[in-house]
Amino acid sequence: MALVVQKYGGTSVGSIDRIKAVARRVAATRAAGNRVIVVVSAMAGETNRLLQLAGDLSAQPDAREADVLVATGEQVAVALVAMALVDLGVPARSFLGHQIRMSTDGVFGRARIKSIDASSMLHLLNDGGVAVVAGFQGVDEKMNITTLGRGGSDTSAVAMAAAVKADVCEIYTDVTGVFTTDPRICPDARKLARISFDEMLELASLGAKVLQIRSVEFAKRYGVPVHVRSSFSDEEGTWVVPEDRNMEDVLVSGVASDLNEAKITLQRVPDRPGLATKIFTPIANAHIVVDMIIQNASEEGFTDLTFTVQRADYQKALSMVKAVAGEIGARGVTSDTSVAKVSVVGLGMRSHAGVAARMFEVLAREGINIQMISTSEIKISVVIDAKYAELAVRVLHQALIEEGINEGAREATT
Amino acid sequence: MALVVQKYGGTSVGSIDRIKAVARRVAATRAAGNRVIVVVSAMAGETNRLLQLAGDLSAQPDAREADVLVATGEQVAVALVAMALVDLGVPARSFLGHQIRMSTDGVFGRARIKSIDASSMLHLLNDGGVAVVAGFQGVDEKMNITTLGRGGSDTSAVAMAAAVKADVCEIYTDVTGVFTTDPRICPDARKLARISFDEMLELASLGAKVLQIRSVEFAKRYGVPVHVRSSFSDEEGTWVVPEDRNMEDVLVSGVASDLNEAKITLQRVPDRPGLATKIFTPIANAHIVVDMIIQNASEEGFTDLTFTVQRADYQKALSMVKAVAGEIGARGVTSDTSVAKVSVVGLGMRSHAGVAARMFEVLAREGINIQMISTSEIKISVVIDAKYAELAVRVLHQALIEEGINEGAREATT
Repeated sequence: MALVVQKYGGTSVGSIDRIKAVARRVAATRAAGNRVIVVVSAMAGETNRLLQLAGDLSAQPDAREADVLVATGEQVAVALVAMALVDLGVPARSFLGHQIRMSTDGVFGRARIKSIDASSMLHLLNDGGVAVVAGFQGVDEKMNITTLGRGGSDTSAVAMAAAVKADVCEIYTDVTGVFTTDPRICPDARKLARISFDEMLELASLGAKVLQIRSVEFAKRYGVPVHVRSSFSDEEGTWVVPEDRNMEDVLVSGVASDLNEAKITLQRVPDRPGLATKIFTPIANAHIVVDMIIQNASEEGFTDLTFTVQRADYQKALSMVKAVAGEIGARGVTSDTSVAKVSVVGLGMRSHAGVAARMFEVLAREGINIQMISTSEIKISVVIDAKYAELAVRVLHQALIEEGINEGAREATT
Repeated sequence: MALVVQKYGGTSVGSIDRIKAVARRVAATRAAGNRVIVVVSAMAGETNRLLQLAGDLSAQPDAREADVLVATGEQVAVALVAMALVDLGVPARSFLGHQIRMSTDGVFGRARIKSIDASSMLHLLNDGGVAVVAGFQGVDEKMNITTLGRGGSDTSAVAMAAAVKADVCEIYTDVTGVFTTDPRICPDARKLARISFDEMLELASLGAKVLQIRSVEFAKRYGVPVHVRSSFSDEEGTWVVPEDRNMEDVLVSGVASDLNEAKITLQRVPDRPGLATKIFTPIANAHIVVDMIIQNASEEGFTDLTFTVQRADYQKALSMVKAVAGEIGARGVTSDTSVAKVSVVGLGMRSHAGVAARMFEVLAREGINIQMISTSEIKISVVIDAKYAELAVRVLHQALIEEGINEGAREATT
């Protein structure tokens, strides 16, 4: 008898009929002898509807109250899913953030989970019931409602699975698994049967929207096996698991693109110690995450400094940079929102050289200029003009995945 | 400096513009030197939308989950009102049922308030802030979410006013006060400047929808002055207050009609001790409130027993009665949902005779047959055919209020 956490996203609970389908799947999992905790997102469109209300009311909605507002989306969904289960004869009960003490820090809108008190849920499970937990929401130490940020329900689910030591955390979504790249861009994309936590982490941070990055961090830290699969079929999905020896045979497991970043450049800054601190401390204090940073050594003690942030934080970051530009003696600030980050990811890069060279060669052949480069042990990212994003994904997928630079194969047999 | 509780109903917060208007009124009340607690209902239409979702999902939605679902309506409203206040520079914060420990019993859908922990709210008020409290919702001792039933936000507001010993509980609604009868039925209805708790209790229980009956019970028990007024004007409304000597001069202060009841009759039941218990104990256990009960003495040890319940409880009550009808030897069960209860209310009835006689005379003159009669110290109710309800209200209002059977006058000067 396994302990299973199942997470259903917004499209999976997007209508009354789909909620009934979710309930049937949960009931079947329970009938097969498993103990089940269900984590649910808001019905598709609901979070946006609520944010729209706040946006209509206020140019800058109060952050605490915005969380009170959007947390209702998940509350509606858990109530309906629990109702649907009760209708099937399953003793189910919904749990909100404060009812399971899903404790977070107090950063409204992007809170981080600190602990979970699963005792009342486990009680229910031991009595044969099903716990239906609101994803995305928690409470801080003063019992203020907090939310975890977009995609936070994935994190709720994996954190829950870690807290109860679940055998698996199943993430139900509207795709059948994790693909080598976005099938809408590249029809030859293939579903992966398995992927390591580290690869998934890179892919998630690179714009593959199938899993929220913090959920993968949680899964890695606590060793929770995650199974990404479709709520519309019984097909096996992709298992996100600890890496094993065979995985390194695959040089490139995925190609991702991210159109959601923007680039900001401080031009001709006097290159003195403490420069980066002056620029990035206020940005960090505003909880803006900086992705890539490049500082070019340049002539006569001056340097250009370029970095990227999420598009949503762009205006705020830009005005902060402009505010310090004079103080640090920069000649000017330029920025560009028409950029794309395109990345290739693979465990095999650790032990095999040549992927970067091949990547640059393929892009050059298409006349795509590389603006920034950033690498890690298992990924290479480049920033290019946004208009080339899809082309770059297609040619890199073809050259690095389809044309067999990989020595093994981890794709699902289809 | 007064401590004021202001309650805004669904129409008062029915749109973004109205929410901003509410915020301006609250801010003005605070700027005038008052400490303010705001209690808010769900935006107009929202509770019905949520119940519709539940109805689409399930023929008999689980009661616990239905409360989790509908409680989101008030949660959305408090977040938006608090946001609007923050935008006006007022330090405001929303409070949900669990955050102020609005403790209730565990009867989902119609819970009763047991206690409130106002300390965190009062802290905020003492720091110059405004507390925005979700009406209608509470938590039971296990922290399950409960709701107080339709109109429960009035009760939340008055209970809150009692808990913090507020100087006044202002109930903002879409009418300008309490009228001698429904102005939509009777254009000559007049607004009352003052009404006693007891009269208001009778009117509320008789179908005048301006205040929820339990809120009036609370107000009477704790002596909370209630001011019913319009959120769309600054006009004085109606004060609901402890009675004073002058009030008895008015024989009839209001005429009310209620089309929301249904009548059930057990025919020819053997008249034995314990009969009523057998019928009404299961009904009470199902938390169904029985309004009028009439038992006619009849020939040869048999009796007819008739009672009324709310239309919403009618089907359930009817099936319960049918279940015991055989056991207690009744010849049959009849029922009627096309009935209206029409009532006249006035403190003066206590000391003045003749109102009942005049009421029956007026109805007889119009050919309206009286099916049931029930009286209290300060009211007379009759059940009649529903189709005569409006006619009855108009002729009774004319004969008992407009034609000056009253010795004094408590109408507002207009």
